[in-house]
Amino acid sequence: MSQTIKIGKQAMLLATLSEEELAMFSGGFENIEFCQGKAGSMEVQKVIAAVETAAKRNGIISEDVYRETHALYHAILESLQGVTRGQIGVGNMMRTVGLRFAVVRGKPYSRPEEGEWLAVAFYGTIGAPVKGLEHETFGLGINHI
Amino acid sequence: MSQTIKIGKQAMLLATLSEEELAMFSGGFENIEFCQGKAGSMEVQKVIAAVETAAKRNGIISEDVYRETHALYHAILESLQGVTRGQIGVGNMMRTVGLRFAVVRGKPYSRPEEGEWLAVAFYGTIGAPVKGLEHETFGLGINHI
Amino acid sequence: MSQTIKIGKQAMLLATLSEEELAMFSGGFENIEFCQGKAGSMEVQKVIAAVETAAKRNGIISEDVYRETHALYHAILESLQGVTRGQIGVGNMMRTVGLRFAVVRGKPYSRPEEGEWLAVAFYGTIGAPVKGLEHETFGLGINHI
Amino acid sequence: MSQTIKIGKQAMLLATLSEEELAMFSGGFENIEFCQGKAGSMEVQKVIAAVETAAKRNGIISEDVYRETHALYHAILESLQGVTRGQIGVGNMMRTVGLRFAVVRGKPYSRPEEGEWLAVAFYGTIGAPVKGLEHETFGLGINHI
Amino acid sequence: MSQTIKIGKQAMLLATLSEEELAMFSGGFENIEFCQGKAGSMEVQKVIAAVETAAKRNGIISEDVYRETHALYHAILESLQGVTRGQIGVGNMMRTVGLRFAVVRGKPYSRPEEGEWLAVAFYGTIGAPVKGLEHETFGLGINHI
Amino acid sequence: MSQTIKIGKQAMLLATLSEEELAMFSGGFENIEFCQGKAGSMEVQKVIAAVETAAKRNGIISEDVYRETHALYHAILESLQGVTRGQIGVGNMMRTVGLRFAVVRGKPYSRPEEGEWLAVAFYGTIGAPVKGLEHETFGLGINHI
Repeated sequence: MSQTIKIGKQAMLLATLSEEELAMFSGGFENIEFCQGKAGSMEVQKVIAAVETAAKRNGIISEDVYRETHALYHAILESLQGVTRGQIGVGNMMRTVGLRFAVVRGKPYSRPEEGEWLAVAFYGTIGAPVKGLEHETFGLGINHI
Repeated sequence: MSQTIKIGKQAMLLATLSEEELAMFSGGFENIEFCQGKAGSMEVQKVIAAVETAAKRNGIISEDVYRETHALYHAILESLQGVTRGQIGVGNMMRTVGLRFAVVRGKPYSRPEEGEWLAVAFYGTIGAPVKGLEHETFGLGINHI
Repeated sequence: MSQTIKIGKQAMLLATLSEEELAMFSGGFENIEFCQGKAGSMEVQKVIAAVETAAKRNGIISEDVYRETHALYHAILESLQGVTRGQIGVGNMMRTVGLRFAVVRGKPYSRPEEGEWLAVAFYGTIGAPVKGLEHETFGLGINHI
Repeated sequence: MSQTIKIGKQAMLLATLSEEELAMFSGGFENIEFCQGKAGSMEVQKVIAAVETAAKRNGIISEDVYRETHALYHAILESLQGVTRGQIGVGNMMRTVGLRFAVVRGKPYSRPEEGEWLAVAFYGTIGAPVKGLEHETFGLGINHI
Repeated sequence: MSQTIKIGKQAMLLATLSEEELAMFSGGFENIEFCQGKAGSMEVQKVIAAVETAAKRNGIISEDVYRETHALYHAILESLQGVTRGQIGVGNMMRTVGLRFAVVRGKPYSRPEEGEWLAVAFYGTIGAPVKGLEHETFGLGINHI
Repeated sequence: MSQTIKIGKQAMLLATLSEEELAMFSGGFENIEFCQGKAGSMEVQKVIAAVETAAKRNGIISEDVYRETHALYHAILESLQGVTRGQIGVGNMMRTVGLRFAVVRGKPYSRPEEGEWLAVAFYGTIGAPVKGLEHETFGLGINHI
């Protein structure tokens, strides 16, 4: 069994690269569904809500089906573990984040039984609530849907 | 104060992209020092050791100065939080990883007082110790040196 | 939308009750697939392996489909968080566990789109590796499949 | 030394079963003191407070003695690790819980020196703050008093 | 290479001892810069802010240099892991803290390349928000600057 | 209710100070029982075992009573959270510790109902398994017995 579409890598590029840079990867995002967005907050809930709302509005997941919300929620949480490096309570610690995110839905495996999976990537900055007192941060979460 | 060199993004690209893809970012890696490597193991210690050894052999950090080892070690740990999504004991859980990594040393900020920083990125797969039963994973850690 | 079959409660009862006690819940386990088993070890990997093996041998999940292994693995991990109360490295801390477990696969929701879910429950003892120096412990994990 | 009264199992049954189901276990709850209650909130503090208040009002622990509050508090925290599966900040993550709980005080061990112990069990649902977008969750904590 | 100045031990003594007790260690605090302060709150952010403010006002770190803020922030977080014993969301759990803290800046190692390091120590009480329902707690964090 | 004997502070001093320094606190350790010891290992289990053995051999806790072992075990774990700053798997990460420890048993509160409590303190170094590539670390855990 091999992994034919790297939805994680695609989510990372979509969250990180500028439009010009993304244009270099022409043809790279054809077999997936994806959306992009921004979230900036000190509260984890708001970051989660921003991704959930974007994914539902763009039809990446179905608003009506709990198992899709459940799959996305856990992919977001895993991605936020990378962003906060194990301490997911961002807003609890005077750190503020400015993040771009991407949600990718696709079929990473060649075998049809493996079905669809989700990837959620964040890229941005985390730091004190003062412009410049911050460094980059990144997260990636993947889940079956 | 602004961040002029994105060492985190560079580390991510260096760990994730193929050589052909990296070639598209010509000129993108000139103001930094970096090394790349691979680590595949079920034991966290061996992954940490692989990165430390590569960084020292390639002169990214000085072998003799504890503060540089200390800075790198914490950047690796933060990056592994993303890889393991908050549960850093990879080898404890029958999951195996196949990772590429990159270590970047550079001056991300325009103000000279901010000095040098390190970024450590991992990209690869994590899963059951059976080929194919795995998905992508990513981590990024950043620290001042 | 309502939850019509409580797979979590069923897994809990299957892992915890004696045969005589379970007999009182006649008819309670008809709409689900399940298996039961035992695991006793100081090493988390062995506990995970015991559950995975039992679930595959009893046909609760398909051995060939990674997404089913992935779903079970995360349900086991969540359940072990309860067993170890947030410190999943059982074997790292001189504590030994004697556990019974149950894996339940079923359709908890009345809407067909919600599909199948898994519940994994553990019940047993955790303590020093001396008979009697131990107390009860329990865990439950749930995931869509 | 053997464990003669399974306060953990009793707490689990008291938190999980309906009154009719509990009636089947006649005689099963005679050698212990216990109370039951409900807690529904997005904030961990309120859940803890609900259990502490119920345990004190029902005389399960003494309001005046700090060591009893201390024992109960840590049993609640351990139980919440199972409920939240290692991420105790429920309210931080847009998840809401609807929980029933039971607190049991008893002497699990035959040797009188082992004295009294506490068990705290939660059973209910956790999920998005939308009716139905949720699944079951469970927790058990045990401590000497 | 040897550690000639124990900035961790000094921070611990400065946070824990009374003035009379500290006077016994005459000459013990000459080669370091340090400040002391108090923080009492149920919110982690306020505790972090109290230490950051004290360290900047007393010139222990430079307000303008992000890498110094970054070093102090991570030393505070590590120290709070000891205070909260792994559960850093103090304010999330109805526990309140009354803490004294000390921040020490010095050169612990004889080799000049090792440069300056920071130690942050907390000592005080943690418990229910009722006078007396509390016990002692301590934390120490160390970082290169 | 007031805390009359600070068993946490006493454990910290006993673990940290030299004999000459401890002699300055004459009279300070009269109302408690305590023992001191050393532990140096990369494996958490060995550190725990060293403290448990010392506490039993010196009669600080009774070897036969599980509740005393249970109380000590959780006090050790809390203290190790400080030592490892939230990542208790020391041996998993190529870090080695050289620790002195103290276990104190006493009655910290003036009210007799509060009974006896335990404090466990560690002080020493943590770092790479190379002499000198290490910094100080500290932990304190407290539990009722």
